[in-house]
Amino acid sequence: MSGRRVPGAAELVAAARTGDRRALGRLLTLAERGGRGADEVDAAVSPAVRGATVVGITGAPGAGKSSLTGRLAARLAEAGERVGVIAVDPSSPFSGGAVLGDRVRMDEVTGERRDAVFIRSMATRGHEGGLALAVPLAVRVFDAVGFDRILVETVGVGQVEVEVAGAADTTVVVVTPGWGDAVQAAKAGLLEVGDVFVVNKADRPGVGDAVRDLERMLDLSPGAHEPQVWRPPVVTTVATTGEGIERLVEVLDEHRRHLVESGEGDRRRSGRRRREIRERALAAIARRLDAELARDGAEGSAGAGAVSVGGAAAVLVDRLTGGASPTSDEGSAGSGAGTADSRHG
Amino acid sequence: MSGRRVPGAAELVAAARTGDRRALGRLLTLAERGGRGADEVDAAVSPAVRGATVVGITGAPGAGKSSLTGRLAARLAEAGERVGVIAVDPSSPFSGGAVLGDRVRMDEVTGERRDAVFIRSMATRGHEGGLALAVPLAVRVFDAVGFDRILVETVGVGQVEVEVAGAADTTVVVVTPGWGDAVQAAKAGLLEVGDVFVVNKADRPGVGDAVRDLERMLDLSPGAHEPQVWRPPVVTTVATTGEGIERLVEVLDEHRRHLVESGEGDRRRSGRRRREIRERALAAIARRLDAELARDGAEGSAGAGAVSVGGAAAVLVDRLTGGASPTSDEGSAGSGAGTADSRHG
Repeated sequence: MSGRRVPGAAELVAAARTGDRRALGRLLTLAERGGRGADEVDAAVSPAVRGATVVGITGAPGAGKSSLTGRLAARLAEAGERVGVIAVDPSSPFSGGAVLGDRVRMDEVTGERRDAVFIRSMATRGHEGGLALAVPLAVRVFDAVGFDRILVETVGVGQVEVEVAGAADTTVVVVTPGWGDAVQAAKAGLLEVGDVFVVNKADRPGVGDAVRDLERMLDLSPGAHEPQVWRPPVVTTVATTGEGIERLVEVLDEHRRHLVESGEGDRRRSGRRRREIRERALAAIARRLDAELARDGAEGSAGAGAVSVGGAAAVLVDRLTGGASPTSDEGSAGSGAGTADSRHG
Repeated sequence: MSGRRVPGAAELVAAARTGDRRALGRLLTLAERGGRGADEVDAAVSPAVRGATVVGITGAPGAGKSSLTGRLAARLAEAGERVGVIAVDPSSPFSGGAVLGDRVRMDEVTGERRDAVFIRSMATRGHEGGLALAVPLAVRVFDAVGFDRILVETVGVGQVEVEVAGAADTTVVVVTPGWGDAVQAAKAGLLEVGDVFVVNKADRPGVGDAVRDLERMLDLSPGAHEPQVWRPPVVTTVATTGEGIERLVEVLDEHRRHLVESGEGDRRRSGRRRREIRERALAAIARRLDAELARDGAEGSAGAGAVSVGGAAAVLVDRLTGGASPTSDEGSAGSGAGTADSRHG
């Protein structure tokens, strides 16, 4: 960091590869902010991606995911890996303190191999599609600069969080004995995305019930009894003491072997790339759409001109895709043969 | 319902207005399914919307939202209103039983005025943007056929659910004494969207603490001490017995008056319409994008041609918005003057 000029993404990648944590932090910040800076990071890391293993960790708030993630990161680091952690938090000005508290605890757990672990919180900051773009890019940043395993922990169990965690090589779903029971996990759509289930806080009463409930629900999954289908194991842990973490690491390794042997790993990887391309394209189009809507705000055209929502939406789509009016932008002079859907009005 | 031919959306709206529950159910099914049928429903209800009040109800799983919603619907119905309930559930083949169980209980509560209440569950069914399109349309269906109040209850507290609940005239956030504390609500970004807070299961220990925590966090909100800013009241309820529901109804009415007097109601309404137009336009474009991606799947062009994700996305966007070749569809033989962003590759 020369102090005079701002280093480019490629320089930051080179520096982060040699272990420069500040450079890595800046790359992740650029990835999170989006826009041109993120595009540059994308271009810089894309050729350097090596194929680190991505582990998603999700579950209800209060299930102890942060402690579990911290313990897991520490254990993997002790075994010689470099571990990146992305903690996905919902956007809330109020949550700063609490979440920071969790992170600090996580830092403590990583002990001597602290330098082998890099933890980063990411928030949506209210900007739509933010996580869907920032998290996969951050994963590739960690990968490109030499991290072996990337843990993506989500705070909530909403659709967005489940998608983020589900875009991993291995998705770990964390529940607790006190979390109602596995039915809540099922309600949140978590049974389908979990490759590994953890009943954390296993020093509390009701562990046996929670494990049994999970196993029973997994029994009902499609293909549950076919030998070549991965049967998600249920691991019990006490993240605060580290109990069960060793077993969790073993199970993660088993799943990694399964991914390689079954070819499922390659499928997930290319699915992830595809999804990221899609989200990035969609975000670019959404920006153009918002510009159109903002202009309508002044002129009121799409909103007022059409009675129905669908009619107003069709007008916007036509303008964006060049389907309709020749008067859309500052002279986008289009041929605009007029598309069908305007009839809704 | 003539038995021979399938009635159109306009006929269904006319029938539902006279109290035909089957017709209403079919309209809601069409709204949920999306596509052309939903477009027709949109066109049919758009001119008939009268401005019913929309109440969003959200909070962590297990907070008793279903029971609370049922009690609230029953109380409003007793007072002479027609009440529509949209229960937004995450998509899960496993959850069918459990969720249905909740609904049945809700039905029981509505008692004699049962016909004044109509309850409908909506799931995402994995189809992206599904809820963002289906729920606002379902709200307008209820509105157009004569319902006075529409309760939108979400199961989870993920980003999507919070957005759905936050698109209401009044958003109610439900917590319990046992839900950790208000910090969890803050973590999930719920403090910002709540107009009314309910501490449900108030027969359990810790109610006082939960109320105090909420009040303290609300004290920290921007504008909390300005007189013209709505200060979210905290109501304690026991949904299973109906305790506190009367007070909740009063508070909802107070907030409705505030919406009218402050002009905030109009702002929320037009914001809702705007958002729905945006989502509908974006969904239409996403469909075209997926068609492009599917074609690439066979030919591998966008994915393989560009090394970076951003480069591949830019190629797709150009194709969709006519930025590149004029021959975007069958025969992408592209002149492709090549837009700026391809340089990423």
